[in-house]
Amino acid sequence: MPRFRMTVEYDGTTYVGWQMQENGHSVQAALQNGILSLTGETVSIRGAGRTDSGVHAIGQVIHADLTRDWKPYTLRNALNAHLGMAGEKVAVIEVAAVDESFDARFSAVRRHYLYRIINRPAPLALEANRAWWVPKPLDHDAMHAAAQMLVGHHDFTTFRSAHCQATSPVRTLDRLDVTRQGDLIEIRASAQSFLHNQIRSFAGTLKLAGEGKMSPADVRAALEARDRKECGPVAPPEGLYFMKVDYPGDEA
Amino acid sequence: MPRFRMTVEYDGTTYVGWQMQENGHSVQAALQNGILSLTGETVSIRGAGRTDSGVHAIGQVIHADLTRDWKPYTLRNALNAHLGMAGEKVAVIEVAAVDESFDARFSAVRRHYLYRIINRPAPLALEANRAWWVPKPLDHDAMHAAAQMLVGHHDFTTFRSAHCQATSPVRTLDRLDVTRQGDLIEIRASAQSFLHNQIRSFAGTLKLAGEGKMSPADVRAALEARDRKECGPVAPPEGLYFMKVDYPGDEA
Repeated sequence: MPRFRMTVEYDGTTYVGWQMQENGHSVQAALQNGILSLTGETVSIRGAGRTDSGVHAIGQVIHADLTRDWKPYTLRNALNAHLGMAGEKVAVIEVAAVDESFDARFSAVRRHYLYRIINRPAPLALEANRAWWVPKPLDHDAMHAAAQMLVGHHDFTTFRSAHCQATSPVRTLDRLDVTRQGDLIEIRASAQSFLHNQIRSFAGTLKLAGEGKMSPADVRAALEARDRKECGPVAPPEGLYFMKVDYPGDEA
Repeated sequence: MPRFRMTVEYDGTTYVGWQMQENGHSVQAALQNGILSLTGETVSIRGAGRTDSGVHAIGQVIHADLTRDWKPYTLRNALNAHLGMAGEKVAVIEVAAVDESFDARFSAVRRHYLYRIINRPAPLALEANRAWWVPKPLDHDAMHAAAQMLVGHHDFTTFRSAHCQATSPVRTLDRLDVTRQGDLIEIRASAQSFLHNQIRSFAGTLKLAGEGKMSPADVRAALEARDRKECGPVAPPEGLYFMKVDYPGDEA
């Protein structure tokens, strides 16, 4: 069966998250329903990453096996038409035919996320559900300095959800950069893989660093404690964007 | 009575527009209701510009006369709290005490708008209601070249709504720039004042230029025809943002 790789964008606000669940409508179900409506085929698709309810994606990647040998742009356009008719807030940005060795989840060599904070006294109107509103001034240089304590190969027990199902809490964090443009603070994180709630745990802890409540040494000590209680309050989902996934052979 | 100048952001999607109307909820009514709820005062506020239903604002400016001599930040925070309780998608970004000579509409010396087009095959998920989706490729350099035909002091009859109430169709357009970053095409327009639907009329006409259907000379001829029929289809409201208003004495 021909296998297709798809890059997917979604507004996570109204979904229970990426993964199919019994308690509500998921992005995965939206896409599977779209494929069913288009092709009549009941497929099970796999995504590169599971995002929680309220988390957005610019470049989630999935793969699906279909019986027909679709032209990629025809499949993209037809699937988008069906998603639109169903009122889904999901769009297929790109489709490519891939061979059977490609797996959206297991072939991924790096995942890139963005966490957006809008740091200003006024609440969000246009950016509601699109960023974390933090009214008190944050020092983004202090946040960046603290973030560097987390980069590298570590046991991230402090920064993962109690519900995380990964067998090991050890990961290699390649990048955790904090930059500011006006009111917008961006945290960019890259790694081969992340633990559940890891980036939102980072963002919540870095906010404390930005408020002057944690020094870089405190953040380092929290990491080394390997204790969930040392983590700052987990940042809300609406600031988080799944941006991009790298696979072997992709252009840089 | 103390007069206050306020900078206001809103998501125009669910409003009938800036101006109070009988057929639905307006941004002006949202703000006046917020002030009534906070102060008990029924005020009539004036905005620097009237935006249509679906049009957004990052920096609309209004003025309001209140009986109490509020500290600006207290007024801002309290009014935002009341707007939030009412579920309004309106936020007061900044408040300043001004003297009675300040008028949000009549003191304005320049208004700045942004029109956003997302030019890609896939429909919009995260940017739905935040930009105009144009799937066919547009040549932004051709759009910019055509736009320069419109800059300057002209009779803009071709580019104003049949419902425009301005006595004269003559305006001086200071800037109409088209730039591109990836899929996002931005049209930035500045003038002391604009006619009704002028920027959306520009955007619709410049799209034809971007498709190669109108040359810069064609756009110039459409302008010189002073005939509404020569205008391209008016672009949809969701791409338009009221960005900023300049007043005498403001910092550059």
